[in-house]
Amino acid sequence: MWIYQKKLEFPVNITAPDLRMAKQLMAQYGGPDCELAAATRYLTQRFSMPDDRIRATLNDIGTEELAHWEIVGVMIMQSMRGASIDELEEAGLLGYYTIHNHAVFPADPNGIPFTASYIQASGDPITDITWDMAAEQGARATYEHLMNMTDSEEYLAPLRFLREREIVHYQRFGECLNILHELFPDGNQNKLRR
Amino acid sequence: MWIYQKKLEFPVNITAPDLRMAKQLMAQYGGPDCELAAATRYLTQRFSMPDDRIRATLNDIGTEELAHWEIVGVMIMQSMRGASIDELEEAGLLGYYTIHNHAVFPADPNGIPFTASYIQASGDPITDITWDMAAEQGARATYEHLMNMTDSEEYLAPLRFLREREIVHYQRFGECLNILHELFPDGNQNKLRR
Amino acid sequence: MWIYQKKLEFPVNITAPDLRMAKQLMAQYGGPDCELAAATRYLTQRFSMPDDRIRATLNDIGTEELAHWEIVGVMIMQSMRGASIDELEEAGLLGYYTIHNHAVFPADPNGIPFTASYIQASGDPITDITWDMAAEQGARATYEHLMNMTDSEEYLAPLRFLREREIVHYQRFGECLNILHELFPDGNQNKLRR
Amino acid sequence: MWIYQKKLEFPVNITAPDLRMAKQLMAQYGGPDCELAAATRYLTQRFSMPDDRIRATLNDIGTEELAHWEIVGVMIMQSMRGASIDELEEAGLLGYYTIHNHAVFPADPNGIPFTASYIQASGDPITDITWDMAAEQGARATYEHLMNMTDSEEYLAPLRFLREREIVHYQRFGECLNILHELFPDGNQNKLRR
Amino acid sequence: MWIYQKKLEFPVNITAPDLRMAKQLMAQYGGPDCELAAATRYLTQRFSMPDDRIRATLNDIGTEELAHWEIVGVMIMQSMRGASIDELEEAGLLGYYTIHNHAVFPADPNGIPFTASYIQASGDPITDITWDMAAEQGARATYEHLMNMTDSEEYLAPLRFLREREIVHYQRFGECLNILHELFPDGNQNKLRR
Amino acid sequence: MWIYQKKLEFPVNITAPDLRMAKQLMAQYGGPDCELAAATRYLTQRFSMPDDRIRATLNDIGTEELAHWEIVGVMIMQSMRGASIDELEEAGLLGYYTIHNHAVFPADPNGIPFTASYIQASGDPITDITWDMAAEQGARATYEHLMNMTDSEEYLAPLRFLREREIVHYQRFGECLNILHELFPDGNQNKLRR
Repeated sequence: MWIYQKKLEFPVNITAPDLRMAKQLMAQYGGPDCELAAATRYLTQRFSMPDDRIRATLNDIGTEELAHWEIVGVMIMQSMRGASIDELEEAGLLGYYTIHNHAVFPADPNGIPFTASYIQASGDPITDITWDMAAEQGARATYEHLMNMTDSEEYLAPLRFLREREIVHYQRFGECLNILHELFPDGNQNKLRR
Repeated sequence: MWIYQKKLEFPVNITAPDLRMAKQLMAQYGGPDCELAAATRYLTQRFSMPDDRIRATLNDIGTEELAHWEIVGVMIMQSMRGASIDELEEAGLLGYYTIHNHAVFPADPNGIPFTASYIQASGDPITDITWDMAAEQGARATYEHLMNMTDSEEYLAPLRFLREREIVHYQRFGECLNILHELFPDGNQNKLRR
Repeated sequence: MWIYQKKLEFPVNITAPDLRMAKQLMAQYGGPDCELAAATRYLTQRFSMPDDRIRATLNDIGTEELAHWEIVGVMIMQSMRGASIDELEEAGLLGYYTIHNHAVFPADPNGIPFTASYIQASGDPITDITWDMAAEQGARATYEHLMNMTDSEEYLAPLRFLREREIVHYQRFGECLNILHELFPDGNQNKLRR
Repeated sequence: MWIYQKKLEFPVNITAPDLRMAKQLMAQYGGPDCELAAATRYLTQRFSMPDDRIRATLNDIGTEELAHWEIVGVMIMQSMRGASIDELEEAGLLGYYTIHNHAVFPADPNGIPFTASYIQASGDPITDITWDMAAEQGARATYEHLMNMTDSEEYLAPLRFLREREIVHYQRFGECLNILHELFPDGNQNKLRR
Repeated sequence: MWIYQKKLEFPVNITAPDLRMAKQLMAQYGGPDCELAAATRYLTQRFSMPDDRIRATLNDIGTEELAHWEIVGVMIMQSMRGASIDELEEAGLLGYYTIHNHAVFPADPNGIPFTASYIQASGDPITDITWDMAAEQGARATYEHLMNMTDSEEYLAPLRFLREREIVHYQRFGECLNILHELFPDGNQNKLRR
Repeated sequence: MWIYQKKLEFPVNITAPDLRMAKQLMAQYGGPDCELAAATRYLTQRFSMPDDRIRATLNDIGTEELAHWEIVGVMIMQSMRGASIDELEEAGLLGYYTIHNHAVFPADPNGIPFTASYIQASGDPITDITWDMAAEQGARATYEHLMNMTDSEEYLAPLRFLREREIVHYQRFGECLNILHELFPDGNQNKLRR
């Protein structure tokens, strides 16, 4: 179970809101490589992992991704705060306003709702950890795309932090893969019956 | 942000695994009224709520629903542990095995992946809190359906706990609705411009 | 069965078409709280309701929502009539034109096709009627968002009518909830077997 | 707009319920070629048709398909009425019960919710009418599959009626195609600008 | 099995890239009537066709549609090559950039991922061939929409070629339908058992 | 473009059809890690790869996965050939029969249609190649699950071949990753502008 701590893992304070960034940040709130995808992927995969260290890593990182999902949500909220309908329209968010007003919703910048089809839990540890390493690279790339869109330090500071965490996670999943290779030296943990 | 506490909100200890229950429990792990739907719905709606008390309630309950999602996940994992392919087939889980082996995955008993299309964040507080009350009733009903399928106290005890929490949540959302009616005595918080 | 009457429930006559409104009106033609969602939700839920009065209400309102779906469809058609490709592009409808030309299609303003994942029929009367009350609030809020976007009485008159009908429906579903509370004084119509 | 007439287009009276048929009938209530798909397809396509006779045909048939959707819904409801959990489980409907109890819901026999991705409105009359002819053939084939599963006249009589209506609709859409070929003798109604 | 030939079926050489066309071409790369839909539809339907000539036609055309899918992919790639973030934003492709950078992805212009819900394989030959004729008409109409958007011969030449192929395919499927009518003179190949 | 060669990459000859295997093989025909997912993933990613060798590898493997998709399709077709309705029902394929009769369709064993949400093209070469390595591991694991279900050499021989090809592909993608690390020694090919 989780205890909520009333504090963001990294501070967010958008004083110069940018609706263009609000829209694009949705990629990390509800898109294919988003923080919600990461959190649900890791927290569900942990149940079938054959090693305590890997289970603990998935648990740690899954919990941290929830915190990242919250950071991105706060960035979107602060970026839309007080925006007029005309401003939302200008930013291509009129369809968003019609359906969600100023609320935050787990969909990508095109409005496509998050789906668990983006994630996998194959029950095969090597497969799942390799997906996880890819997912961390994908999230890193998405943060780089976002950082390429703005000059504002108010956006860049949390994005830089989030991007760096993905690299750390990637490395930790690399260590999990090493553990799996030690546990299953023949490279195949799924004992074939035939 | 969240701190993980290595403890389930309610203890689960399935010593007599029942694959039939494993399959049906997926309704609460990845189905339309599942705990993941509840957690993401409340944790995302809080960003646009106009009152600190309501924000706090959504935060509390959203965090608790994550713990419930974990409880259901553990129940599924323990219910499938060690099951042979023949047993999985007997329980209608052969297709599940082919794709997920013994892993836990956020899909409903028919294998349909979780989607954010099940939830809403309309930016209209009265609308969202009414949806939340309906969602709690729906989760209660689903737990009742599950309780009607088993005689095992190992399943019934956590299901009874989870069902009762939904009733408490329903009441707390009822209090949020009262707050909203006080804040917006004309029953309409979304100031019409025309 | 239904008899078609060649007449709209409320007259629509758009002489000054507005493609911006065409696009946003799609929220009520194919979006999460749209009139098609309402019609299919109520017309399907009626089959499992335990009371003749509630079944009749769902039937009445479901039938009326079909008429509303038609009104919204006519508004979209008239708003796109004769628009050039350049005008469609200007309004962010070029992708719509590529796939649908000037046809009307049940998708939201972002082009996401309608899905029954937006609706529920839980078999639990209190749950379903509570969802229905939330759905009516959601539709009301969406109409308010649309009314906030235009000054044209050609759009405002039907939108005002449609919004008011949602409030009436909300009240009628409130009466259904009262009936259910009378029928099931212990607040739980789903007899638990254990 | 539509007026509801409290009468089925074809009488249904299932005195010997068959859960196996209940499950399969869902193909016509929420599957890819279902009556809801037909009704929404025709009622939405009519808006962009270039000829009054074709618009009238789409309107007539779309309205009749709603009545067929109702017939199939009643057949499902009567087929599940009073079924015990054990009987539902035996029929592969336990996952359905968990989510929907004894309610009727627009999903296919595998539980996949209806989606407007099954239908099209291309704005090209010849394209749309050809889809409609295919859809009628598909519905005919599905009814044949269903008729091949039962010996009960209580099921066969309405299924036979519904199948025959699809053939009539197919012929009427064939007449619409002839009208289009007359209107656009060069076989291409979509004037190419280049 | 297939042998790749390092050559496009029709040459593409976009020297004056047009991001607006890039976005709209996605309709034929991942939209409802796209070349991928066509290829998968025909290549999968061939398995259940009752006649060698029809199987061969589906195989030929399915293989050609793969080549068309490749042509459209190359057109999109060349149209986005070297585009700056500002240019992508101007063309409404900023959300695309955030998720896919300059990659090509099977989604429609609105970003909605390709789904097999767009296609059918009913096991009923007349139904499937009629769908295929409709699909060819739909692809023709989509190409006409695209041709209406540009004056550039670099785009028009391949689009004209692709459109013309759809008309040829339509005629070939018409011949398949004639074969089926000969094979099944009573118009119904699905022998009804009752 | 592709040339069809009338020959399977590996021979299939099921003389003792097994409907249970037919159903499970659908995981590789339309499920999350299926051969169609692999083919479309690689054939679309190649457009944005920065190196000729990697583009060639994606092209080769993508083309081979199409051949594998065909092999799996033939296995499913042969496994269902001539099956009676009763036999299909016994194998949990009655819902499949209702919608698809004996046709082959790209859906998973639960009937969920293939979707491009299963795949990614991020425009970031390291990310995409890492996903591809994970996808090959996932396909390997799925083939192992399938091999664990049967003793029949008629099934095991092609499954063994297909599984082995995934391991070879995994290795070839590993070589692509090495090339990328040489090309981008600082491990990050996506030049950050800020």
